[in-house]
Amino acid sequence: MDNIFNNLPDAARMMAEEQFHTLLTRPGVRIERIVSHGQITPVDAPYIQPVDEWVLLLAGAARLWTASDGERDLLPGNHLLIPAHIPHRVTWTLENAPTIWLAIHFEDY
Amino acid sequence: MDNIFNNLPDAARMMAEEQFHTLLTRPGVRIERIVSHGQITPVDAPYIQPVDEWVLLLAGAARLWTASDGERDLLPGNHLLIPAHIPHRVTWTLENAPTIWLAIHFEDY
Repeated sequence: MDNIFNNLPDAARMMAEEQFHTLLTRPGVRIERIVSHGQITPVDAPYIQPVDEWVLLLAGAARLWTASDGERDLLPGNHLLIPAHIPHRVTWTLENAPTIWLAIHFEDY
Repeated sequence: MDNIFNNLPDAARMMAEEQFHTLLTRPGVRIERIVSHGQITPVDAPYIQPVDEWVLLLAGAARLWTASDGERDLLPGNHLLIPAHIPHRVTWTLENAPTIWLAIHFEDY
């Protein structure tokens, strides 16, 4: 059976970018795994998305800034809704172990 | 920040039923936390749902039977799609610790 903690990008080599992997799509929804390894979002390039996104941290640790709530630490089990159009940035992730996120994107039809 | 591992039903008292808690709903989607504590689905009352369901085991351990694939063990990180109309039953969950599932229900508009 598939395991979200398996088949991680090779942490031994330098991961230049966060790794995005779509697990499932359905009308209006996309389920995605994101693996970070020290990456942050550039200060001058926040994410601004046209649709809501629900995020659950599964492993590792991260810090997320949103224009609505400022900077918050995330540990495994933490979850939050990032509303559409709210600028947000990942300001820190663990450097010595993978940080694994589950993201549910509520996409337009 | 909300944590999916917090505010669990009191495991010290006997949980008569699995505990279902909707975390978020959007058109066509419902995100739910399910906490099991030894419960199984009665053999004569399998779940048969009109819509697809995606399940991710977050903590604990469980065994799931589906009419399409038989019985399979689930450990944290295991995930699978239970297609609409496929009879399925939880045939075992840990008795001495909570088993926590994330379920994404793809509901009809």
